[in-house]
Amino acid sequence: MVTSTRLGKNLFIKSENLQKTGSFKIRGAYNKIRNLSPEEASHGVIACSAGNHAQGVALSATKLGIRSVICMPEGAPILKVEATRGYGADVVLVPGIYDDAAREAQRLAREEGYTFAHPFNDPYVIAGQGTIGLEILEQVPDVEQVIVPIGGGGLVSGVAVAVKSMRPNVKVIGVQAATVPSMFVSHRVGEITTVKDGATIADGIHVLTPGDLTFRIVQEYVDDIVTVSEDEIAAAIVALLEGPKTVAEGAGATSVAAFLFGKVDTSLKTVSVVSGGNVDITTLSRIITKGLQKTGRIVQISTKLTDKAGNLAQLLSCVAETGANVLDIAHEREDAKTEVNSCVVTMTLETRDAEHVRKIRDELMRRGYRLLD
Amino acid sequence: MVTSTRLGKNLFIKSENLQKTGSFKIRGAYNKIRNLSPEEASHGVIACSAGNHAQGVALSATKLGIRSVICMPEGAPILKVEATRGYGADVVLVPGIYDDAAREAQRLAREEGYTFAHPFNDPYVIAGQGTIGLEILEQVPDVEQVIVPIGGGGLVSGVAVAVKSMRPNVKVIGVQAATVPSMFVSHRVGEITTVKDGATIADGIHVLTPGDLTFRIVQEYVDDIVTVSEDEIAAAIVALLEGPKTVAEGAGATSVAAFLFGKVDTSLKTVSVVSGGNVDITTLSRIITKGLQKTGRIVQISTKLTDKAGNLAQLLSCVAETGANVLDIAHEREDAKTEVNSCVVTMTLETRDAEHVRKIRDELMRRGYRLLD
Repeated sequence: MVTSTRLGKNLFIKSENLQKTGSFKIRGAYNKIRNLSPEEASHGVIACSAGNHAQGVALSATKLGIRSVICMPEGAPILKVEATRGYGADVVLVPGIYDDAAREAQRLAREEGYTFAHPFNDPYVIAGQGTIGLEILEQVPDVEQVIVPIGGGGLVSGVAVAVKSMRPNVKVIGVQAATVPSMFVSHRVGEITTVKDGATIADGIHVLTPGDLTFRIVQEYVDDIVTVSEDEIAAAIVALLEGPKTVAEGAGATSVAAFLFGKVDTSLKTVSVVSGGNVDITTLSRIITKGLQKTGRIVQISTKLTDKAGNLAQLLSCVAETGANVLDIAHEREDAKTEVNSCVVTMTLETRDAEHVRKIRDELMRRGYRLLD
Repeated sequence: MVTSTRLGKNLFIKSENLQKTGSFKIRGAYNKIRNLSPEEASHGVIACSAGNHAQGVALSATKLGIRSVICMPEGAPILKVEATRGYGADVVLVPGIYDDAAREAQRLAREEGYTFAHPFNDPYVIAGQGTIGLEILEQVPDVEQVIVPIGGGGLVSGVAVAVKSMRPNVKVIGVQAATVPSMFVSHRVGEITTVKDGATIADGIHVLTPGDLTFRIVQEYVDDIVTVSEDEIAAAIVALLEGPKTVAEGAGATSVAAFLFGKVDTSLKTVSVVSGGNVDITTLSRIITKGLQKTGRIVQISTKLTDKAGNLAQLLSCVAETGANVLDIAHEREDAKTEVNSCVVTMTLETRDAEHVRKIRDELMRRGYRLLD
């Protein structure tokens, strides 16, 4: 458990990103495999995942001396494939998308006698994730609220059952990406609903249909479900990098985003479960930029200048007076938008906050610059 | 103390990036201020720093109920100024560079009676940093080697005295940025030497002249000093983000870089002191890219194509066959380098390692593509 004043005095982080394999998934996978019969164990387990579940199953099986096979869609990131192999699994790359890999895993389970390890809709998996709830009650005995990311619902089901059984007054709040709100919608309308696909940086909770088991548990035990935007998730990732100096993946940061952006009661002593840290490092840069923009820490401002000596210097000295640092300047002369003898200057500025950004824009407009979108 | 198999089985991390204020500096600053006479304490302390020392002094003084004044050069990053104020210091922004701020701090110390808190060349500061050495011996009793970043030498002096006094057989290795090797050179030539200024992402150890006190201690207690390149530092930052999911600043990552790139005996059970985590988040993206390039995890490859339908598709399918993922493509038609009817295509590829990069380049050349630098 890490605490950080940078995230507000009421917010504690349960750091499952520091868990073995980089996410909470190993808890449920281990509990599932540990409870196989000797007969089942002798045949091995199979799972379908291009993400954290794959690594959780692989390492759990290896630790228990059981064979594991993981089906992944062919386009899975190189590093995830290598990591899963590194934990001892046989990886089968299946042509097509996730659904094709899932079908292949089920076919192999039937034909080869492997036990299929579902990523969330399984009582042993749910019970394994529930150990997080027990640890939270032990580590922060006066906790008043727990925030948990929801994809298929395995994590929140386990945590909610554990927390509510021991301490019914502690609020359990689920959080989803606003672009893929499957459990949010299902919870509101009162039945399992498949949502249209959407894009999200929180790939760990990118699930279009909740499980039936997890749905029933959520209906009974979870107090509320909220959603967060992509910008809010990115800003939470940045806050975790800068405050507790810790790396969260998109899904893991949603619980922090819900608190930081006031989607929950922030007067309560809260534990946010940061469910994992396996963010693709090659995309982290883009996420950081998005996160800094959201909180007004960087901004891009474009304006048109007549292409004359001194005009750019004048613009920059005006910007300097506002106290912003120039990180980057792009100077386009041949854009279709610009007339002959004029150019579009796009400045990337380091700023204090959204208020500072507003002041800079106002000051530039006051000096006669026309700001472009 | 965090351990991570991702960094090799012999490497432990002493995570001073998770320390209050984000670096080890608070240990020395607190010890210095705690040992002021009541008379000195009543006048307050002054320091000059645009970095971690500023925050260490500010928070220590505030905790001890003593006034602190920090001189910073005017161009200091907005966030560092705000953080230092947030810890309770009065910040004086001095026109000019660091040296001007340092002179102003000394003038104010003389005229106003503040005690000047030197960032490294002070026995109380050194003793404070030494507590890290004691903790390492307690946390990893069978440690054989400790690696410590060196700027002015306060941290390594404290750690070396502590470790060598208790366990003379444990090796203490210092590490510097190859571009600013002041203590490295001074150690080799046997006298305090000022090096020419160089650029480094390890701003926390950007010191051109060692202290006389720290130099003497290093000569007596430190076994060896090694240097690491900028690329190696960047790669270590990436390894810390991906393995233990932790954010290190450049200076903090040098000790890990020294181990990962074999500058020390990697068969020894080693603790690397990750001295701080206050990396400027707006530049972290660039550092990540550099780090991924160093280890062959991403690569940019440029080639010239005649500007004809199908040529780009052919190039990309050739790349796809090598197993690389395309992250970005830039397509320049109007560059001075290119003739009419041809264009330069620059692909940013996600790759497995340096060996994979070599294979891709070989395969493209075998197919007749001429690769540009």
